[in-house]
Amino acid sequence: MPNPTAAMLVIGDEILSGRTRDANMHHLAGELTKHGIDLKEVRVVSDDAPAITAAVKALSAAYDHLFTSGGIGPTHDDITADCIAAAFDTPIDVRDDARAILAAHYKRTGTELNESRLRMARIPDGASLIDNPISAAPGFSIGNCHVMAGVPTIFETMVASVLPTLTGGAPLLSQTLRIERGEGDIAGPLGQLAADFPDLSIGSYPFSHSGTFGANIVIRGHDGARLDAAMQALAAMFPDAIT
Amino acid sequence: MPNPTAAMLVIGDEILSGRTRDANMHHLAGELTKHGIDLKEVRVVSDDAPAITAAVKALSAAYDHLFTSGGIGPTHDDITADCIAAAFDTPIDVRDDARAILAAHYKRTGTELNESRLRMARIPDGASLIDNPISAAPGFSIGNCHVMAGVPTIFETMVASVLPTLTGGAPLLSQTLRIERGEGDIAGPLGQLAADFPDLSIGSYPFSHSGTFGANIVIRGHDGARLDAAMQALAAMFPDAIT
Repeated sequence: MPNPTAAMLVIGDEILSGRTRDANMHHLAGELTKHGIDLKEVRVVSDDAPAITAAVKALSAAYDHLFTSGGIGPTHDDITADCIAAAFDTPIDVRDDARAILAAHYKRTGTELNESRLRMARIPDGASLIDNPISAAPGFSIGNCHVMAGVPTIFETMVASVLPTLTGGAPLLSQTLRIERGEGDIAGPLGQLAADFPDLSIGSYPFSHSGTFGANIVIRGHDGARLDAAMQALAAMFPDAIT
Repeated sequence: MPNPTAAMLVIGDEILSGRTRDANMHHLAGELTKHGIDLKEVRVVSDDAPAITAAVKALSAAYDHLFTSGGIGPTHDDITADCIAAAFDTPIDVRDDARAILAAHYKRTGTELNESRLRMARIPDGASLIDNPISAAPGFSIGNCHVMAGVPTIFETMVASVLPTLTGGAPLLSQTLRIERGEGDIAGPLGQLAADFPDLSIGSYPFSHSGTFGANIVIRGHDGARLDAAMQALAAMFPDAIT
């Protein structure tokens, strides 16, 4: 059975303007791979309601799971929850369970639960909450869509709570061989290897530094024995270029 | 007149599996902002021909410019050029001008221009070449689509050759104010500021480290005087929380 598929939607002007370097995509990609869910597509859009809603509709329809990052804080530019509700055609308002979580947190820290903070308790009808042990304001899951904070530490804890609840497939295994030979010399034999092992994904990632150049060949698949066989065949092709 | 818009398409299994952390998106985002072109959307797809072709069609139709990164090397998984040709419904084959560039480069370095390397001279009809001073194999522009290498150093030099040929708008200016106050306290006044300055984009990016917390408020726009006015209004709102 093929693995479940997933997409990610990163929401935020700060990524598209170059102010902030996104870190969540790389983290989620690695965690999904370990969990046996194949990340097939990522989109980054700005804090623009039609863009967010359209992307949520397209990606949640095309893949088994959709993970979003960003736009669920207390400020005027945090519009993700409302866009998700619109995409799933569901009412949204401050929900009692989320309000109670925020009220307890702010009481503990001696902070006022004002109108802005209360925005973070806006949760679509029918969604289940995702715990936020760092700053309390919850994420949520609705349908196949998991809505999480953009702050990397919070995003990572939310991913850690959500992933165990999802059925994964066989984790994607990978083996890497560093070959100190021009990629153009590797390409021919590598194409033959790819043809011989059609069940594996074989990628070539060239490097060049300090006068040494070559490529890291990464073989990925779900069957460890097949990976071993392909890796041995590859190593036999370049006996002199492996250090 | 509004700025030209752009999208980026990052192509590569290695990003989606979490093996490689993409660096090109952040670089391009910053360069486009400086050049007055608004990056509106980024997509990341795998080395899968239908996915690449569909994304190229959608993004080149929706935005003024499309920049792609990755998949133009010599190996079997480098299928970007063929997918671009398919998306633009244009024939593709080894082209004499690109072959001459490769032949000269490999002659200089004493390397054989074999069949695999010759794949890098496959250029769609009607495309213009983008110079690659690092490893010779050119990128290309066709229609509104600029096709570049995924290796960051090469990607960056290609962006540097392409951008001056494109008409930009007013560069997006930004000013940042660090406010040491909970984002929930900032949100109310900030929403009022956003309403007072509808021509500016105002974002709030919370931070928390070593016991200090607050938010960086970033105001972006094309008119420096408006930015100054908004920044002064913002500073007046939080006189005690600015260090």
